[in-house]
Amino acid sequence: MQDFPLTLDRFLDHAAKWHPQAEVVTARGDGGVDRVGYAGLRERAVRISGVLADAGVRFGDRVATLAWNTQAHVEAWYAIMGMGAVCHTLNPRLTAEQLAGMLDQSQARILIVCGDLLPLALAVAGRTGIVPRVLVIDGALPEEAIATPRVDALDALVAESEAEDAPWGGFDERTPAGLCFTSGTTGPPKGVTYTHRSSFLHTLRTLHTDVMAISGRDSVLVAVPMFHANAWGLPFAAPASGAKLVLPGRSNDGASLARLILSEGVTVAVGVPTVWLGLVEHLEAIGGDLPTLRRIIVGGAPMAPALMERLEARLGVTVQTSWGMTELSPSGTVAVPEDPDRSPAASGKPAIGVDLLLTDANGTPLPEQRGVEGHLRVRGAAVVSRYFGQETDATDASGWFPTGDLARIDERGNLFITGRAKDLIKSGGEWINPAEIEACIGALPQISQAAVIGRPDAKWGERPILLVELREKESISDEALLGALRGRVASWWIPDAVIRLPTMPLAATGKIDKVQLRRQHG
Amino acid sequence: MQDFPLTLDRFLDHAAKWHPQAEVVTARGDGGVDRVGYAGLRERAVRISGVLADAGVRFGDRVATLAWNTQAHVEAWYAIMGMGAVCHTLNPRLTAEQLAGMLDQSQARILIVCGDLLPLALAVAGRTGIVPRVLVIDGALPEEAIATPRVDALDALVAESEAEDAPWGGFDERTPAGLCFTSGTTGPPKGVTYTHRSSFLHTLRTLHTDVMAISGRDSVLVAVPMFHANAWGLPFAAPASGAKLVLPGRSNDGASLARLILSEGVTVAVGVPTVWLGLVEHLEAIGGDLPTLRRIIVGGAPMAPALMERLEARLGVTVQTSWGMTELSPSGTVAVPEDPDRSPAASGKPAIGVDLLLTDANGTPLPEQRGVEGHLRVRGAAVVSRYFGQETDATDASGWFPTGDLARIDERGNLFITGRAKDLIKSGGEWINPAEIEACIGALPQISQAAVIGRPDAKWGERPILLVELREKESISDEALLGALRGRVASWWIPDAVIRLPTMPLAATGKIDKVQLRRQHG
Repeated sequence: MQDFPLTLDRFLDHAAKWHPQAEVVTARGDGGVDRVGYAGLRERAVRISGVLADAGVRFGDRVATLAWNTQAHVEAWYAIMGMGAVCHTLNPRLTAEQLAGMLDQSQARILIVCGDLLPLALAVAGRTGIVPRVLVIDGALPEEAIATPRVDALDALVAESEAEDAPWGGFDERTPAGLCFTSGTTGPPKGVTYTHRSSFLHTLRTLHTDVMAISGRDSVLVAVPMFHANAWGLPFAAPASGAKLVLPGRSNDGASLARLILSEGVTVAVGVPTVWLGLVEHLEAIGGDLPTLRRIIVGGAPMAPALMERLEARLGVTVQTSWGMTELSPSGTVAVPEDPDRSPAASGKPAIGVDLLLTDANGTPLPEQRGVEGHLRVRGAAVVSRYFGQETDATDASGWFPTGDLARIDERGNLFITGRAKDLIKSGGEWINPAEIEACIGALPQISQAAVIGRPDAKWGERPILLVELREKESISDEALLGALRGRVASWWIPDAVIRLPTMPLAATGKIDKVQLRRQHG
Repeated sequence: MQDFPLTLDRFLDHAAKWHPQAEVVTARGDGGVDRVGYAGLRERAVRISGVLADAGVRFGDRVATLAWNTQAHVEAWYAIMGMGAVCHTLNPRLTAEQLAGMLDQSQARILIVCGDLLPLALAVAGRTGIVPRVLVIDGALPEEAIATPRVDALDALVAESEAEDAPWGGFDERTPAGLCFTSGTTGPPKGVTYTHRSSFLHTLRTLHTDVMAISGRDSVLVAVPMFHANAWGLPFAAPASGAKLVLPGRSNDGASLARLILSEGVTVAVGVPTVWLGLVEHLEAIGGDLPTLRRIIVGGAPMAPALMERLEARLGVTVQTSWGMTELSPSGTVAVPEDPDRSPAASGKPAIGVDLLLTDANGTPLPEQRGVEGHLRVRGAAVVSRYFGQETDATDASGWFPTGDLARIDERGNLFITGRAKDLIKSGGEWINPAEIEACIGALPQISQAAVIGRPDAKWGERPILLVELREKESISDEALLGALRGRVASWWIPDAVIRLPTMPLAATGKIDKVQLRRQHG
C-alpha cells in the first residue's frame, strides 16, 4: 500500500482541491463578516509558512498564537503546522504572568496576536526570558506599536515576501503539530503536545456518523475557542469534510451567535453549555427562530437537564452531549446524533480509537466495569502519553491515562461523568460527590448555575455548601432548594448553607471556577 | 501522544467490549439463520488464532480462504489477521487451475474452505506445488473426506485445542493483513496486499457521514462477496461502529435477500447492481415491502438509470453509487448519502485520504481537471503501491496509480467513470467509448443489460456491435434500439449490429464479462 503520512496540511490541500468554494466565515464584530474559500485560505496559509521561514522559524520550533476564532488564526495554525513547526495556542483570558510562564516553557520566539490583544501580548513578551517577535493579525497595527521594535503586521510581511518555496508538508506523521497547556488549577500548568498523526486520527473520528458526523453539507459554528484544546478539532474536521466553518471572532454573546447562525445557515453549533444558555435567553427575549440549526454539540462542563430541554424545545435542535479534556485532543466520547435515549447526564460511548477503564483510587481495574462508579482512565490514538518537557509518563504501566474524573458506565456502554476526584468532599470520613448534588439542583427550573464546595468543619472535617445563580426573574427559598435534595441524595450530603451569587465565577475555559469559589466561600 | 498501532484486531476488541450484543447474522440456506454477538465472535476468532498457531502458522504466513459470506468466514479473517498472518481470499467462481496458480504465488499452506466448496478445494490442492492443509468450516465434513489426509473440520480442532496464549494483535500497523488477486482479464492475475494500516484507514473513511455512514444503529447486509476486495471493507466497518452485520451465505437471489432484510431489520444493503435487480424483480413478482431498508450502496459496475429509478421507487430507498477497485481496498469514491443531486452516472467525490488526477494516455496531467475526460489516476492511504511479489512499482514516478479507467470530474468534484481505456474501440483511427453507448441503451425501460464491444472490420479497423438482454416480457426492435442513440452519440458511433442474448455473461465479480463476449461475438 502507498505511503500516506497523516499530516494536517493534507486537510487544507484536500479542501482546496475538492471543496475550493466552501467558505470560512468570520464575524468581524461590527455585524459584518469576512469570507474566504478553502482554496484561497490554503494559498494564504502557504504564503505565511514562507514568511515564518523567512523569519527564522525552523522545523520543530514553537510558534505561539494569542487570538480569537478568526480566519487569520486558522491561517496561522495551518501555516505553522504545515511547515512542521508547533502551534502553541495561548488563552487570552489568562494573566500576562501565567502566559509568560507558558512561553518560557515552550520557548516560542514568535507570537502571532490579534490586534486587540496586542497590549496583553506586549505585557507577556516583557515578562519572558525570550522576548518573542510579535506578528499582528486581525486589525491594523496601532500607531504606537508601529515604532515598537519586534512588532510587525503579519499582512505587511506577507505582501513584502518574495518567498517562492514555502515549506509545506512532506514530513513524518509523528511530528508535533500543536501545544496546549491545561488550565492547571493546582501546580504549574502542564503542556500537551499534539502530533500530526494524533490530530489526524482525532479528525477522522470526529467525522464518523456516530460521533460529530460533520458533513460537507454542514455549516459549523465553532463557539469553542481555538486557543483551547484545538477548538475540539473542528478547524481540522471542517476542511477535511468540506464543511463551511463559521467563526464568531471574540463575540460569543447570544445576539451575535443568533445573527451568525441565521446569516450563515449554520446546521451544527459547538460549544460549552453556558454559550447556548446565552443564545436561548436572547431568543426568548427578542423572539425569532433559527430554522437551519439542527444540532448543538456541548461539552466541557456538565449539561443541566433544564437547559438541554429548553434548547431542544425552543430551538428545535438535538443536543449532543460529549466528554473530553485537553489531554484527549480533546474529544473522548460524544453521544450519538439523534439518539432517542439521549440524556443530559450521559456523554456517549467511545468510538473506535478510544477505550475506557474504571479503576479504584489506586488504579486497580474494577472487577465490574458496568453500573458502578470508578476512577476513569483512558487510552487511545489521541491521548497524551507524557506532558511537554517532562521526563516521566503521564500514563500508568499499562498505558492508561488517569483522567481525574469519576465515572459510571451503563449496560449500554454510555459514559456518565459523576464528578472530579479532587472535588470530592470528605465529611465524617466518608465521601460526598458535589456533582450529584449539583445535578439535582441544576435540574430545578429556577436555577441558572449551581456549585457545591467543601468548607472546613471542626466536627466533620468538611461540610458541603451550595452556591447558586438564579435565572433572571426567578426566585426560590433555601428550604425549597435543599428540600429538592431530600430522598435524592443521602441526608448527610445535604449542604449546610446556601449562598446566592449574582454571577457564578467562570474559569478561562468557561467552566465554573471552583478554585475561586473555595477561596472566597470555602 | 500514545502509541496506538492501527491494527485490525482492534475492531473486534472494540466491538466485543462496547457492542458485545450486536450481532453477526448468517443465512444458513435452509431459511434459518445463525447468530453470534461480537463478544462471542471475538472469543472464537482468538481461539482459532491459537489453532492456526498450533498448525504451524507463523507471523507473516499466508492462509487462504475459499468461502461464502458467513460468520465462520469472518472468524477466519480475524483469526488470520489478528495473529499477523495474511488472509488470502480465493474466489470460488474461478477454476481450480486459476486458483492453484494464485496459491502457488501466495504459498498459503493452509486453506480454509466452506463445506460445499471442498471438492473445488481438493481439486485446487491437487494442482498446487504446496499441497495445502484443508480446514473445513460451514458444514459437516463429508464421509469420504474424513479419511482424506490433510483435511480436518476446523471446529473439531477448536474443540480439541488447548492453546492458552493465542497470538492476537500487538504488532506493527504496516504488517500485511490481506491478499486479493484481481480478476485479471489479461495476463496472469496480480495480487494486491492490504496492510493493517491501510484497511484500518479505509474503514475510518467508510464510517464517515459523507461516505458509507455506517452507524451502530445500522443493520448492514453485505451482498458483496468477502472473497472479493474485502467485501468493500464492511466486515471491518461493522464491528468498528457496532453495526449489525448480516451475511447472506452463498445465496444472493432476490427471495433470500428479501427474507433476510425483513427478518434482520436491514437498514443498509451493499452490493453490485445486478443483485438489487434480482431483489426488485422478486418484490415486483410476489409483492411486499422492506420497511427498514433506507439505503442501497452500489458499485463494481455502472448503474443503469432505469434500475436506480426502479429501486428508489419500488423500495423507497436512496441509492448511493460508488467507484472502486481491488487495488483501492477497494473503495475510491462514494456518493454522499441522500444527495438530492445524485445521479446514476456519478460516483461521488473523494473523501479525505483519496485523491484523483486526470492525465492523458501517457500519464501527463491534463491542464484542466474539471469537465474534461481523461485517464484516471489515484493516490491514497489504501491504494496499491506494488503488486504482490513484483519488483517494480504499480505507481508512476509521482506516486499515482493508473486505474485504467476513463473519467470526467464535474465542477462540483463528482467523479463520472466514462469507460475502461482497454474497452475503447478504434474505428477509422478515432476512439469510440462503449460506456457512453451502453449508458444510453441501459436507460431504456425494456433493457436489463447492455454491452458494446468492437468487431474487426476490414475498412475501419474495428466497428462497434451492441449486445442486449431484455427485461422479462419486454420487446423492442433493433431500429428502436439504435434510434435511441441518434442525436445522443456521434452517428459513426452507432453500432453496426444488435445481438440479443437470453442472459448476459457475468464475470466472477458480477460484472459483464466482456472477454467472453469478445471471444464469442467479437
